[in-house]
Amino acid sequence: MKILLIGASGTVGQAVEKELSQSEYEIIRAGRTSGDFHVDITSDDSVAALFENVGRIDAIVATTGNLFFGPLEKMTSRDFAIGLQDKLLGQVRLALTGQHYLRDEGSITLTSGIVGQEPIAQGVNATTVNAALEGFVKAAACELKRGQRINVVSPTLLSESQETYGPFFPGFESVPATRVALAYRRSIEGVQTGRVYTVGY
Amino acid sequence: MKILLIGASGTVGQAVEKELSQSEYEIIRAGRTSGDFHVDITSDDSVAALFENVGRIDAIVATTGNLFFGPLEKMTSRDFAIGLQDKLLGQVRLALTGQHYLRDEGSITLTSGIVGQEPIAQGVNATTVNAALEGFVKAAACELKRGQRINVVSPTLLSESQETYGPFFPGFESVPATRVALAYRRSIEGVQTGRVYTVGY
Ligand SMILES: NC(=O)c1ccc[n+]([C@@H]2O[C@H](COP(=O)([O-])OP(=O)(O)OC[C@H]3O[C@@H](n4cnc5c(N)ncnc54)[C@H](OP(=O)(O)O)[C@@H]3O)[C@@H](O)[C@H]2O)c1
Ligand SMILES: NC(=O)c1ccc[n+]([C@@H]2O[C@H](COP(=O)([O-])OP(=O)(O)OC[C@H]3O[C@@H](n4cnc5c(N)ncnc54)[C@H](OP(=O)(O)O)[C@@H]3O)[C@@H](O)[C@H]2O)c1
Repeated sequence: MKILLIGASGTVGQAVEKELSQSEYEIIRAGRTSGDFHVDITSDDSVAALFENVGRIDAIVATTGNLFFGPLEKMTSRDFAIGLQDKLLGQVRLALTGQHYLRDEGSITLTSGIVGQEPIAQGVNATTVNAALEGFVKAAACELKRGQRINVVSPTLLSESQETYGPFFPGFESVPATRVALAYRRSIEGVQTGRVYTVGY
Repeated sequence: MKILLIGASGTVGQAVEKELSQSEYEIIRAGRTSGDFHVDITSDDSVAALFENVGRIDAIVATTGNLFFGPLEKMTSRDFAIGLQDKLLGQVRLALTGQHYLRDEGSITLTSGIVGQEPIAQGVNATTVNAALEGFVKAAACELKRGQRINVVSPTLLSESQETYGPFFPGFESVPATRVALAYRRSIEGVQTGRVYTVGY
């Protein structure tokens, strides 16, 4: 079984690769500057080339996507567009293009995050984008063909990211990346579709 | 009390204007090609000019926003971007710019729709955008200053739109626009913030 993992070099991606490599999967790693294939999820041409090069796959996993963080009072529509173009439309693009390369009964697993449901200071763009991704998955699950499934994993702050993002999450519990990685296995090997798998909250 | 109503000429907007005109409000109507002021919510310059021309206001109400409808199987990222740029970023832009023209304790009321929570065929873009708007409002409510509030109204299909959109909503109950309009009054005159007011479902 062939799995395309976009964002493999990241904090979440590394944990997912480690979890999945315990099974007999062929994991194809993609990233903007790292991995077996380079891809920019904000570009149609780049994503099309990725799938053309990789060919038929059994699962697509995206653990990537940039957001804008900053106070609402100073936020511009240009700031706001960052998360829309990158984390939101980037992952949507992987799903829209990827469905055509995905085998029957194959799965797509995207990544949102706790801020979609629990707002934090300076996180308006993150809440919007994560909520959008959860809406996308719920609707896309109703329309995908050939038994294909789609889910999204919504982790709380990872313990491994505590040092970097901890100050944005006062009083939030963090969760080890190993636990987050399990949710991706659950999406890939399970039967459910249109689900938001929360981890650590 | 001065209320800026963007989308005033539409099916929802007309009902909101009728409802609010029962009170002593000064209603300023805006639309792309109609109303007291013309504005294109997809343009920063146009929205900035609208608020500069209108000046201080007590409430902002948006009953506007275009989406893309079509099957997931054929959807491109360009199709998908239509709803992101128009209904989503358009209404977000009204809020981001509008907060600076809004009086203390003033309110912003946006519009999503039932498809944000109940997917329909060809509605993946609509579910995503409406869910995103609901996320935006929940997060923005936590950050708005000076007692400003923000809510979103999520109506089911309007009875007045049954003929046009009915076939997309098999078995859905519709609701008269007069009932939908009440939710806007509730948002403007109430004390709540960060709320999604569903109407008819
Ligand atoms: N870390 C957390 O605590 C946490 C919690 C909840 C949700 N999340 C979400 O999980 C996702 C991953 O977070 P992370 O902390 O693992 O991020 P990260 O460590 O910064 O890794 C990001 C990964 O995405 C790739 N990437 C970045 N921009 C890309 C682009 N335009 N096209 C293709 N690939 C791109 C990077 O590739 P290169 O290394 O090659 O540049 C890298 O593999 C994000 O959506 C984040 O919001 C994270
Ligand atoms: N109708 C329903 O059953 C229903 C149900 C649930 C949710 N909704 C949502 O409610 C909102 C309004 O729907 P509606 O049926 O009332 O729409 P509508 O009848 O088509 O009216 C749209 C209004 O928005 C204005 N407008 C369009 N594009 C604009 C732009 N780029 N910039 C500024 N103004 C623009 C139009 O102005 P001009 O006339 O001057 O062009 C018009 O006033 C939409 O977000 C829709 O998704 C509608």
